[in-house]
Formats: sequence, structure tokens, C-alpha cells
Amino acid sequence: MEFDTIAAISTPMGEGAIAIVRLSGDEAIDIANRVFKGKNLKEVESHTIHYGHIVDPDTKQVVEEVMLTLMRGPKTFTREDVIEINCHGGLVSVNRVLQLVLTNGARLAEPGEFTKRAFLNGRIDLSQAEAVMDLIRAKTDRAMNVAIGQMEGKLSTLINRLRQELLETLAHIEVNIDYPEYDDVEEMTHRVLLEKASKVREEIIKLLETSNQGKILREGLSTVIIGRPNVGKSSLLNSLVHENKAIVTDIPGTTRDVIEEYVNVRGVPLRLVDTAGIRETEDIVERIGVERSREVLKKADLILLVLNYGDELTEEDERLFEAVSGMDSIVIINKTDLPQKINIKRVKELANDNPIVTTSLLEEKGVDALEEAISSLFFTGNVEANDLTYVSNSRHIALLTQAKKSIEDAITGVESDLPIDMVQIDLTRTWELLGEIVGDAVHESLINQLFSQFCLGK
Amino acid sequence: MEFDTIAAISTPMGEGAIAIVRLSGDEAIDIANRVFKGKNLKEVESHTIHYGHIVDPDTKQVVEEVMLTLMRGPKTFTREDVIEINCHGGLVSVNRVLQLVLTNGARLAEPGEFTKRAFLNGRIDLSQAEAVMDLIRAKTDRAMNVAIGQMEGKLSTLINRLRQELLETLAHIEVNIDYPEYDDVEEMTHRVLLEKASKVREEIIKLLETSNQGKILREGLSTVIIGRPNVGKSSLLNSLVHENKAIVTDIPGTTRDVIEEYVNVRGVPLRLVDTAGIRETEDIVERIGVERSREVLKKADLILLVLNYGDELTEEDERLFEAVSGMDSIVIINKTDLPQKINIKRVKELANDNPIVTTSLLEEKGVDALEEAISSLFFTGNVEANDLTYVSNSRHIALLTQAKKSIEDAITGVESDLPIDMVQIDLTRTWELLGEIVGDAVHESLINQLFSQFCLGK
Repeated sequence: MEFDTIAAISTPMGEGAIAIVRLSGDEAIDIANRVFKGKNLKEVESHTIHYGHIVDPDTKQVVEEVMLTLMRGPKTFTREDVIEINCHGGLVSVNRVLQLVLTNGARLAEPGEFTKRAFLNGRIDLSQAEAVMDLIRAKTDRAMNVAIGQMEGKLSTLINRLRQELLETLAHIEVNIDYPEYDDVEEMTHRVLLEKASKVREEIIKLLETSNQGKILREGLSTVIIGRPNVGKSSLLNSLVHENKAIVTDIPGTTRDVIEEYVNVRGVPLRLVDTAGIRETEDIVERIGVERSREVLKKADLILLVLNYGDELTEEDERLFEAVSGMDSIVIINKTDLPQKINIKRVKELANDNPIVTTSLLEEKGVDALEEAISSLFFTGNVEANDLTYVSNSRHIALLTQAKKSIEDAITGVESDLPIDMVQIDLTRTWELLGEIVGDAVHESLINQLFSQFCLGK
Repeated sequence: MEFDTIAAISTPMGEGAIAIVRLSGDEAIDIANRVFKGKNLKEVESHTIHYGHIVDPDTKQVVEEVMLTLMRGPKTFTREDVIEINCHGGLVSVNRVLQLVLTNGARLAEPGEFTKRAFLNGRIDLSQAEAVMDLIRAKTDRAMNVAIGQMEGKLSTLINRLRQELLETLAHIEVNIDYPEYDDVEEMTHRVLLEKASKVREEIIKLLETSNQGKILREGLSTVIIGRPNVGKSSLLNSLVHENKAIVTDIPGTTRDVIEEYVNVRGVPLRLVDTAGIRETEDIVERIGVERSREVLKKADLILLVLNYGDELTEEDERLFEAVSGMDSIVIINKTDLPQKINIKRVKELANDNPIVTTSLLEEKGVDALEEAISSLFFTGNVEANDLTYVSNSRHIALLTQAKKSIEDAITGVESDLPIDMVQIDLTRTWELLGEIVGDAVHESLINQLFSQFCLGK
């Protein structure tokens, strides 16, 4: 495919040592040559880097001292000619360099347009392109490993294998339809169909089973800490933040960046919801009232309910247990440094099957056990992210869920001796749904929407 | 010189398309080779870029898909072997790559250590190194041009020329001391000395004259908007911010970055002091009281005093004029859309020599004139930044001021027929002081302190 030449700043905005202006397209080298004073870029070899200056061709003014990398397609990220201009990293100077390449023939790239070209030019499929973005946004090593696996094509390979099985099955059906006179072909078709379709179903189910963990790894676990005043909620928050590496993420797109706080607990990224609120008022329940807090709680993936070991259970405690019933929660009995007054037996009754951990945050005791409890609540067994092909993307999960339904319809069809062309429709639908995951025959508007979520310059 | 191998993330922290881990030192290529799966880096040519993967040599796990640039010294930024690993740009993955090169033999670079090596290895002098940082922090095109000029060695060339003149003058004195018997040599020495020293003094004075503007370009003009409630201070702030590109800068070093707001008015960077305060309370004077506001005002470089055209002058207005007397200020008579009640003659008396601009911010009138007034207050004539060698760095200004004093002492000495060896001391001191600007014989602790102000990875 042929496109115009695009350009964007490909490094995060801010003060840094190096900022990169990237160009991609047929005219990338010509445009760069117009503003680059150094070697003649038309004559240098591919995949080489050159020292020189960016000079405004109109005013002859030196704009930046740069290192310029030239890569000729198709062995590039976009499969097109790519130029990367490494600048000194100031906001003003890198913007000037970008402006210069824009006035000299390039067009400002839309968010994700470089990756979109890599996809449209066939270098990567859609699930790999999506993994590029997941990798950038990964909050923990585990999440990163999932993204790397997907980017390397692990998920694509699996999906493509399933689609191949479906194609073969559809071929059998074609034989059956084309040669209805052979009875044994029909019989075989029936048996093979059931076998193959069941196998595909199993694989889809296995993939969907990873999706809960995959989604947590990708998006983080929204976690709310609740408890009566003065049971140690702030201490808990602080010890989680201090014991573990807090991951502070800038979310681009706003002038003043919104900052979210993530805590990495043994590979599980906890997104501490309403952290500021907790910090300021020490009490989310107190602040917004029990009724409204239930709504906040509903959206949480994990509740940390804190009790006071040195105090008897109060009605408020019991109400909190009620409010979180049916949710993933961990009960933390804090302040074991005080003489026991709490009724542990009653706590066990109220906690139901939810894990109970005793801590003394003051004496820094029990935090390990808490982290273990959080980790084992979401990662049963010793599953390492790299052992499995995870599904983490909501779009993939939705498509797999639909594909599962389709393949089950096909199986039911075979079992109920429905006309074979009905079964054929369900199988074809399954094949198509799986195809959408890797971007085979995906609608253009979906592609545009997907890539627009990328960051600028990617 | 030989150093160990250092590594750091050289792009700003945040989500972006590309992040760079940079290595510099004798072992850079060996260390990269240990974690890079692709071509054997020992065998590739210098200044080439290669596709491959970063793989943990212990676990064999793929950490990132990268483009790796290899540059062998001395034709590099640091004059050492340099490796740049271009990653996909996620916080977690780029940190993993950095960790891997650190566990495989590199040391984490200190802030500014790459540039420090460029200086210590003789690629750039100290004023050029300082310009690198100025370029990164530049707030406007003009400031950038000053930094580019300095980085390219404009200031260094000038300083070195002055030092050469001083050396020649000192040589004349040596002749005089060595051959005291020749009267004519002494006479010539006297005449040449005065001539040369005066010339050096003139050049230093000329440089110092640019320092006020240079400092403004580099650091911005701290600007305070004052006026009675409801005269239009917020509207003024908003129209300055909206009409011009607001430059938001992240200051690194803190977890939650402090954000300062700059407005670029015709190349003059205005740093709007206490913007948040003005925005929230609409009135700095009201908020902190007239007494304390005077202290805030004292630190400002520019005062914008706003009056109401549709209102008579009040005692409070007069007190504000008093508070800013002797400071650079611009008087803005706003709300010309209302019927005139203000006594313009009295305003002119109060304003003294300060410029007066009339505006109707409501009708978007007069903002151009205000910008013109701001610009011409600091840039007299049509001086373009690139026509002059500006001095903008406080360290340079201090050294030039001392050098001016030294050379003046020398001149006085010659004129008063002081013993020639006394004059020699003053001239040598001048030569040394100018040398400190370009980093000749600068104390190690000063060098360490200077480079520690750089950002990480530079």
C-alpha cells in the first residue's frame, strides 16, 4: 500500500535527554534531506545513523544538533522508509524540528498511525498491534510478559491454528455437500465435525479462563480500602505503597496530566481507587456516606476490609461486611499489638469464605501474609504469566465469548442432526469472529477507532 | 580518559512510542551483546542500527523487541563507545531493559554524566555543556536560539578570543620584565597594554549588557498581575494564556511533578507567578494583604497593573502605584467598553515613565498593544536573538562581572604607573576568570555540582 509521509514526536513530552521526531513514508528521506545538514541522505546506506544539524532551509538558521537514523523499507516498523531524528530533548527545539518537517512536506501523524501502517502493510496483525499499546501501558512485569507474548504473536498463532481447524472442518462439509452420494463421507463428516468443533470449543474455553487474570494484569485491580475510622486504613495504604514499588502513570491527552497510582503486589497491579480521598479524609465511608459508598464498592475488584484487633466488633463493622457480601474481599484484623478484644469466631462467620489476615502495621507484621492472600486470590497455583497465552483485551474477550457461543451452536446442530448448511453457517461465523481478533477482514471504522487510542508518535 | 560503562533511560518518563536506554563506555558493546539477540554486535559496523530482542541471559525470557544503535568512539556524543536501545516505550519494559544492562555490567549514570563525559573527554567545553541543558529547558524559540548559539560554541569562541588577547598582552609584559633595558619596549608595553586591556573591557561590558535579556530568555520573566477586585485580572491572565501558546513544563525530580506555566509573548517567556493563587482568589493583594504582597512584588521582573476605565481612581489604586514604584511595570486601563470615568491625566502622572496601554478584554481589544509594550520593554530595537552572543547563565554573568572588575583594576594600575607585576596579576586573574566560563582549569567539585543539575540520561 502507498500512503503519504507522516511525522510525529515519538518520545513522551517533558524534559529529557533525547527526543525523537519520526517520519514514515515514501518521501521521508527527501523531506529529511531538505532540513538536514550533514551527509546526503539519498546516498547513505540503510540502517545507519548520522551526525548533523537541522537547518531551516528558508532562514538558514540552525535549529538543532541531531543524530539522524535512516531506515529504508520494507525492513522497518511500518515497512515504509523511516527517518528518526534524535534531538537534544527540549520541548521547544523538538517542536521546531517537527514544524520544519511538516512545512517541508510531511503530515502530522494521527495517534497510533505508525502502528496502523505496520498493520495495514502486513508487518503485524491486529492483536499484535494492540499488544504494542499494552506493552507501553503495562503496570507490572507480568503484564509486560503477557503483552510481549502477544506482540510476538503467541495469541495470533493460537487463533490462526483454531481458524485452520475450522477451515478444514468446513472443507469436510463442502465434500459432503458436493458428493452427497457417498454415505461414508457423511458419516465421517459427522464424527470429524463433532471432534474438531469440540476441540476448538475447548481451546476457546481455555483461553477465556485466562481472561480474568489477563484483564487484571492489563488493567489493574481496582482496590478499595474500607473500615471504621482509626483502624489503620491509611497505614495500610502507606505500607502497600512503600513496601512495593508505586507506579505513577501519566495519562496523556490533558494539559495537566491526571495521575493514577498503581501498586505492584507480587505481579498483581492494584489500582488504588480514590486514593486521594482516603488519604485526605481517612475514610471513604465517612466521607461519602454508607449508601453512596456501596456504589463505589460495586465497581471495585477487591475490597480490603480493615478491623481493629483491640476493639470489639461494632454494628458499623457488621454493616461493612454486609455491604461487601458477594465481592472479592480480604479481611484484615489490624493492631495485633493491642490486647485482643475482637471476637475472632464472629469475624470468621462474617467473613464467610473470604481470607482473613492478621496484621500489626505499627510493628510491620503481617504485610507479607496480606500480599500472599492478594496474590493467591487471583493467581491460583504457581501460574507464571509466561507459561500461558493470556487473553487480556476486552475486545478479544468479547469476540471469544461470541465465538464460543457460535461453536456451541454448531455442536448442538450436529448433535440434533440439523441440516449441514445450518452448521456450516455457525462454523463460518466462528471462523470470522476469531478472524476479527487478528484483524482479518475487520471493518475500517473499527481499525480507525482502535488505533486512535494509541499515543501520538506510535 | 577511561571510565566505567554507564547506562540510563534517556527519554522523559511517561508513556510514549519510543524510550531509549543509553550506554556509554569501553564495555558498552560487550554488555549490550550479552542481552541482545540479533546480530553479533562485535562484528557490525559503527553507526548502524539493528533489529532484535532484549533477552534475559539467565531466564532466556524475551524482555523487549528493540532497535539497537551502535556507535563506536570517538565519533560519539561522549567520545566513548555508545549503545542506544530504542524500546517500545512502556515504563515497565524500559525499566526492565535498564535493569538487565545494569546487572550485566553497566553502572547507573548520574544526572548529566553523559554530557560530563563529553566535557571531560574534550568534545565540548563547559559553556557548551551548559548550553545543552539550556536547550532542553528553553521556553521559547528565542531562548532556544541563544542556547543553540552557545552550544555551537559562539560564546566559547568569543571568550577564547578575549583570553588570547590577554595572553598576548601578558607576553608583552614578559618582554618588558625580561628586557628592562629597552626603554621603547616599556613605552610600547604601556601603550599596547592600555589599548588591549580597554578592548577586552569593552567586549566584557558588551557581553554583560546582553545578560539581562539573556537571563530573561533563559529563565523567563516572573510576572505578577495586580489590581483591585473586578478590574479584569483573570481575563487578562486568560487572554495572555489563550492568545499565546502556554508552555507547561514538568520539572523532574519529584514523584508528582510540579507544573509551572509559561506564556510566550513575542519571544519573551512570561512566568506567571502564583497563577494558581490569582485564579483561585482572583486577587493576590486581597489574598495575602498589601504588606506581604509588596514582598512578592519585589521578586517580580514585571508588574502588570490593571485599572478600570469605567471607574474613578481609588485610594487603593494609588497605593498599588506606590507599591510598584521603581519597578518595571505596565499600566493597563481595561474596560474601555464602559463609559470613561477614570482620570487619564492622573494615571499618567502616577505611571511616571511606565508605558500605559488601554484595553477592552471583553471586546478583545488592545491585547496586541500590550504584547508590543511587554516585548519593547525588554527588547529595545529590532534585536533578534540570533544576531547577538547572549550571556544568559548566572554563573557566566558572575564570572564576567568579576573579570570586568579585574581588567578595570589592571587599567587603573597602568594609568597610575603601578609596578608592572601588579598589573600582571590583575590580567592573569582576568584570564583565569574567563577560563572558568569555558571550563579551563575549573575545580572538580564545581564540575560535579554543575552536571548534577542535568536531567538523568543526558
